[in-house]
Amino acid sequence: MDSVWGSYPPKTSDEQLDYLAQTVKDWTIFNGLTVRPNPSFIDDETNSNHVLATNAPVTLYPSPFPRKCFEQAQRLQALYNELYAAIASDEAWLGQIMQELVEVDDFLANLWKIHLQVKEEGYVQDLTLGLFRSDYMLHVPDEATAPSLKQVEFNTISSSFGGLAVRVARMHTELASFPRPGRSIAYPTHDLFGTASAAAFPPPNHAVETLVSGLAAAHAAYGSSKSTPALPTCILFLVQDKERNLFDQMALSTFIRTNNPDIPTFRLPVSKILAYTTIPSTSDSSSRPLIYTNPANSALRFEVSVVYFRALYAPTEYDTPSSWAARHHLERSAAIKCPSVLLHLSGSKKIQQVLTDTSSPILERFLPNTSKEDLEMLRSSFAPQYSMSDGPDSEGVKIALDSTRAESHVLKPQREGGGNNIYRSNIPTFLRSVPEKDYKQFILMELIQPPKAAKNVALRSDGQVVAGDVISELGIFGTCLWRSGNKGRDGMEVLQNGEGGYLLRTKARDSDEGGVAAGFSSLDSLILYDE
Amino acid sequence: MDSVWGSYPPKTSDEQLDYLAQTVKDWTIFNGLTVRPNPSFIDDETNSNHVLATNAPVTLYPSPFPRKCFEQAQRLQALYNELYAAIASDEAWLGQIMQELVEVDDFLANLWKIHLQVKEEGYVQDLTLGLFRSDYMLHVPDEATAPSLKQVEFNTISSSFGGLAVRVARMHTELASFPRPGRSIAYPTHDLFGTASAAAFPPPNHAVETLVSGLAAAHAAYGSSKSTPALPTCILFLVQDKERNLFDQMALSTFIRTNNPDIPTFRLPVSKILAYTTIPSTSDSSSRPLIYTNPANSALRFEVSVVYFRALYAPTEYDTPSSWAARHHLERSAAIKCPSVLLHLSGSKKIQQVLTDTSSPILERFLPNTSKEDLEMLRSSFAPQYSMSDGPDSEGVKIALDSTRAESHVLKPQREGGGNNIYRSNIPTFLRSVPEKDYKQFILMELIQPPKAAKNVALRSDGQVVAGDVISELGIFGTCLWRSGNKGRDGMEVLQNGEGGYLLRTKARDSDEGGVAAGFSSLDSLILYDE
Repeated sequence: MDSVWGSYPPKTSDEQLDYLAQTVKDWTIFNGLTVRPNPSFIDDETNSNHVLATNAPVTLYPSPFPRKCFEQAQRLQALYNELYAAIASDEAWLGQIMQELVEVDDFLANLWKIHLQVKEEGYVQDLTLGLFRSDYMLHVPDEATAPSLKQVEFNTISSSFGGLAVRVARMHTELASFPRPGRSIAYPTHDLFGTASAAAFPPPNHAVETLVSGLAAAHAAYGSSKSTPALPTCILFLVQDKERNLFDQMALSTFIRTNNPDIPTFRLPVSKILAYTTIPSTSDSSSRPLIYTNPANSALRFEVSVVYFRALYAPTEYDTPSSWAARHHLERSAAIKCPSVLLHLSGSKKIQQVLTDTSSPILERFLPNTSKEDLEMLRSSFAPQYSMSDGPDSEGVKIALDSTRAESHVLKPQREGGGNNIYRSNIPTFLRSVPEKDYKQFILMELIQPPKAAKNVALRSDGQVVAGDVISELGIFGTCLWRSGNKGRDGMEVLQNGEGGYLLRTKARDSDEGGVAAGFSSLDSLILYDE
Repeated sequence: MDSVWGSYPPKTSDEQLDYLAQTVKDWTIFNGLTVRPNPSFIDDETNSNHVLATNAPVTLYPSPFPRKCFEQAQRLQALYNELYAAIASDEAWLGQIMQELVEVDDFLANLWKIHLQVKEEGYVQDLTLGLFRSDYMLHVPDEATAPSLKQVEFNTISSSFGGLAVRVARMHTELASFPRPGRSIAYPTHDLFGTASAAAFPPPNHAVETLVSGLAAAHAAYGSSKSTPALPTCILFLVQDKERNLFDQMALSTFIRTNNPDIPTFRLPVSKILAYTTIPSTSDSSSRPLIYTNPANSALRFEVSVVYFRALYAPTEYDTPSSWAARHHLERSAAIKCPSVLLHLSGSKKIQQVLTDTSSPILERFLPNTSKEDLEMLRSSFAPQYSMSDGPDSEGVKIALDSTRAESHVLKPQREGGGNNIYRSNIPTFLRSVPEKDYKQFILMELIQPPKAAKNVALRSDGQVVAGDVISELGIFGTCLWRSGNKGRDGMEVLQNGEGGYLLRTKARDSDEGGVAAGFSSLDSLILYDE
């Protein structure tokens, strides 16, 4: 596994690296592979009119990736799409899991409360749209073992970077092929970039088409206006007020405008939900259309077919009382939610852990028509995880308190929002400082062991070029549109199940936590190789 | 004429203007309608890695323009292309004009000297490419007169903004048509934006296709390599070292890469001409191929088919002795120059003035096969200009010293480089302070009187939104590729003559000079109306 990295990325002279970095700086801006700059780079005083942009953080080279693992990730996607659609449709099963979670996580508790309120009033929309991204890392426990794919998380809300990932793949392809494949100017010659006779490029990335096909299918399934008089329908992109990643989102809305010009899309910042959308009180209680009025022209009104959440996914975003009111307002409306509250909850870490529990036939419950081989493939992509709420004799607690076995694990809070993970030998010490009744706040997970020799060079958004050891995470995009029945998995009907497009995110290896703040996390693409 | 401006641009509420400006801020970045920021906005210390970008200055609305005048400007272009090709081919005639100019203008004198040196050595390339932009203003001397088109200048070198102008037209079209033509969100309803049944958009802008077709024709006409062994050929974009307008240029190179993938293009900063291009001394003296080596990979060498000048047009750019050496080096090479020194000289203000002299049949000399009607149309596009070197009884000097007649004129230095114009009643006073023998340093030009009621709103590159009275300048792009003979106009052969695409530049009316520094000059598009 590590051998492919022996000569990768290729060595460059200073002149070559300068030329490559300059080419990337110009390409990114010209092609909208951009973000608004972080205030830590350009302060708000300098940038008071918010016009500046800079390149998204990108790697200068695509990262080698085993073809087998990439193709397996693609095959897994349709299964995962259906699995999570089934989970989100099984309110009774989710309710059991939530009983434990609401005690340790206010955020999940509040989401669950919204579901219960809307359930009591009565849902008026039985369609749900999921735009998913399943994230994996390569797992290489030792030199002798072929790399395998382990799932890091399954995103059921705000799955981002599809728009920019497509552009990164295009950029790496151009860099490797200009003026001729196998003899490019920007890249030194290297087998992985192909030869003059057989060029090797990043695989085509259809993330935007995939995500848009999901949105368009949901828009069509919503059908005609439920308002009197009828209004034109539209898709609403729900966005953060100070979004810096808006160009990623614009890749989707621009694609819709070009290829589905009959579907208007609008951006709505979270703080304006209650100002610019209403559910007319006069409407039939069984309808509740969500009406959107544009700030520029209040005479033009639209009925929202799909609310596409690119916001309100993290606890920190619910920082005013009206944030929760707004989420409740959207949930009770007739708009198709991408995602519904139940689908949002289905993406929590606890669900992922429960699925890995091999002691009960959970996968069979949700995927009754799936072959044994496919179920086995799904299971093989799970990183082992353990509940910490099953008492001192459970496998999880035993591993966590054993300093040797703990060495290959991480202890994660069940709370959503990231951070505060406890690693390796710190786990037993930490747990002994915590009352046993609080163990259930955590999940124990086996650490994924990515290839040790991986290296790349990144251009950060502030223009710094950084080279070093890296860890990559592969995301595969998928979509699912389904109609929920009243009988959990059995009553549901899948209307669309799509797969396509990928994201590779590559970050410095120098920290266990490895978030964006800790090191750098850059958009990457991949170049496939056969072992 | 002014009536069309009575209700234009349409009034907006603050919310409408905010929404429109925000939409434009995001659209420009996403679509590469961008520039690198001016150091007066973001200093080099903050932006030390030169990654930041901002929107090009643009108008929020297209400007109304009389359809008749626009179509006339299009018809004029092929005539102007041929006229300037003929002038640049008539070395004897140019030589006479230069005799006077070399005394008053070191810059033109140095260019002429390069021509004489290469002539003595012997030119090895008889093909020349012109990528032109003919700039006009609307002239409305009084309310009762229909607007007419008057030429401001004819650019024979570095005709810029074709790449960005195409994007501005697309942006204004989208703003006027989303979600529906005639009922857009970003623009208030207005007859000029069309109705639901008949949408009115900026005309399609084919500037990039036009300019690239000229470059591609020249590249093809260059033929195969003159080197031994043969090298692949390429087009070289000669650019300024600190170019901020590079995305305009990238629109051309990207179009070539997509549509003419067999033509490599490279950017070469002026300071690197002598480092990265050579004319091998071993080559046959009748050949002199220009060899380009890329800084990133010295093993890959190319022979330059076309040197496309996006630099070295202004006197201020020749700020080191090697600038002139570099220009001479390129001129003597076998590469097709866009433009040659003679074509560059043909674009000087003096030539423009000489052409307007109705006392001699100059147009007939250069365009012997052109109909009387077409020659008349050409002449009608000239703003009256007068030589100041023909003595105290000449028309020019008489007007300039008459305070009443001077009121509608501007006195311009013949020197290239802009600025230092003397306006209106200041002309007689100024001239009386100057020795009569120095009058020949100037040209007198009748002031063009643009529509007084024109207004628009612009988004500057620093994000400020500015509304007010404006003056617009229409540019039409054209190309010409020709082979010069030894007998001036008679010996030349035009291989390609193309027209297509436009630029509208709109600036604040508040200054006679009206340069970018004085007010704001924004990229605009036009919306045609019939009077």
